[in-house]
Amino acid sequence: MRITVLAGGVGAARFLRGLKHAAPDAEITVIGNTGDDITLYGLRVCPDLDTVMYTLGRGINTQQGWGRAAETFSVRAELAAYGASPEWFTLGDRDFATHILRSQLLASGLPLSAVTEVLCRRWRPGARLLPMSDDPVETHITLADGEPRTVHFQEWWVRMGAEPAAAAITAVGAARARPAPGVLDAIDAADLVLFPPSNPVVSIGTILAVPGIAAAVAAKTVVGVSPIIGGAPVRGMADACLAAIGVDTSAAAVGAHYGRDLVDGWLVDDTDKSAADDPGLAGIEVRALPLYMRDLPATAAIARAALDLAVELR
Amino acid sequence: MRITVLAGGVGAARFLRGLKHAAPDAEITVIGNTGDDITLYGLRVCPDLDTVMYTLGRGINTQQGWGRAAETFSVRAELAAYGASPEWFTLGDRDFATHILRSQLLASGLPLSAVTEVLCRRWRPGARLLPMSDDPVETHITLADGEPRTVHFQEWWVRMGAEPAAAAITAVGAARARPAPGVLDAIDAADLVLFPPSNPVVSIGTILAVPGIAAAVAAKTVVGVSPIIGGAPVRGMADACLAAIGVDTSAAAVGAHYGRDLVDGWLVDDTDKSAADDPGLAGIEVRALPLYMRDLPATAAIARAALDLAVELR
Repeated sequence: MRITVLAGGVGAARFLRGLKHAAPDAEITVIGNTGDDITLYGLRVCPDLDTVMYTLGRGINTQQGWGRAAETFSVRAELAAYGASPEWFTLGDRDFATHILRSQLLASGLPLSAVTEVLCRRWRPGARLLPMSDDPVETHITLADGEPRTVHFQEWWVRMGAEPAAAAITAVGAARARPAPGVLDAIDAADLVLFPPSNPVVSIGTILAVPGIAAAVAAKTVVGVSPIIGGAPVRGMADACLAAIGVDTSAAAVGAHYGRDLVDGWLVDDTDKSAADDPGLAGIEVRALPLYMRDLPATAAIARAALDLAVELR
Repeated sequence: MRITVLAGGVGAARFLRGLKHAAPDAEITVIGNTGDDITLYGLRVCPDLDTVMYTLGRGINTQQGWGRAAETFSVRAELAAYGASPEWFTLGDRDFATHILRSQLLASGLPLSAVTEVLCRRWRPGARLLPMSDDPVETHITLADGEPRTVHFQEWWVRMGAEPAAAAITAVGAARARPAPGVLDAIDAADLVLFPPSNPVVSIGTILAVPGIAAAVAAKTVVGVSPIIGGAPVRGMADACLAAIGVDTSAAAVGAHYGRDLVDGWLVDDTDKSAADDPGLAGIEVRALPLYMRDLPATAAIARAALDLAVELR
């Protein structure tokens, strides 16, 4: 079975671990969001790609969900001693090595997709990891307070804790970005496409904003997992992103936002089972089940339910 | 008193500590060798500038003479796990921060002299530290064995331990390099110029190879400290460099190599006091004294002797 997954960071990475457990023989391709990417200290940092790579490669700080296990912070402390900014983004020493090597390879002329392949040779994530695009796309946030001011997504998310509210969220560069080599092929060749419980705006939304990807996905059987349980994001501040695009923070509203042209099946938590009757989800097959990814067995069960629904809907 | 010092790495840095002790009120400008500079993992590393900066800024690993105190090596271990090369050059985590910041600032368009000034704002070395040039100069070694092969100085020095012998030593880029801003002014304005016991070929020799510097130095009162004691380099493999340019490994031969047009006074170790009668040193005032920089008092005494001789010869 060929499965293609559109992935953000922590939520997607955990879901993918469950998926690998649920479908050990499947050929999984992960199309990773690069809109969160940022250049720090002159080094290119790809938080979502790395979170997936480290998680599937068993190098992740499992408690935290991102960054490396057994991490130290000498480089960061030294940069702070030099007064180098920004200080609000935490990179560990082990993590720095990834960004140093990635930046070196990018500077040597390799596209991000090839660089990601080089990095994955070490991590052997057990899935093919592709950036959504080799072209730079950066999500920027227009703040809703005072005079209009635009900051990088990471500054809003990490430094500001998503406050003030976002008046607009823009994937800068997305309109002229091309899908990375292999992305459209991986979607076309997939038996089914899954949306993990990632941020529907700045993760999966950004991937879908790359011209050609949404149309390719729409042609396939797609099952999504709601990132919203009981009216709140399970993790992160997806509500702040949804508010910016005028979508309610509810499992039903997110499913309706994707829409039946894109999504065929939609998994919601038991808490949200009434979503099945939501008129906005007409034409989408809704299934309710426990959606908290507490541990690997629970996560594998969610992945299995997604797979079963997709197979049923094909 | 204005003192300008041409400096390599460890030997120069130790001498400079002694000089600051001997002449606490002097205005010291250090012109640092950049021919040892190398780009590793896409980051620009300036071993000699950093050794001087860390030593005078009290961040050096004093035992080793180079690198940072209380260093860790996570980044390096991770890069090795990725199979990134080279593995023969050891960079610690704290040290990496310096190279990351330097590379970021260079990439932003600042010349190396301005970058060095930024880094020194943290270290407050108590001397003005200038690279010999903002233009890239790299010392390359043509190996004497088998077919002609040229490697970066660091590869020959660090990886190969200076074997096989060097058939030629070339400061690539030196002929068209310009002295960094402030370098010629610092020499012109100096009351005296000192050559610490640095490598006469790949450290001081490379600085002097930048057009304009040797002529400016020749116009001043110059006292040098022999890096050779009793026919052997005190530290490092200067003998291998001297052999490549046909100069004997002796205090007299090195003084004669600099020559009386450049050097007015020459300090040799007591062991080498017969150098005073060496015809090659005719016209150069030779003084013998203990030259091992065992500790700060011993080093300060050497610096004081150099200053006294220079004042006497002015």
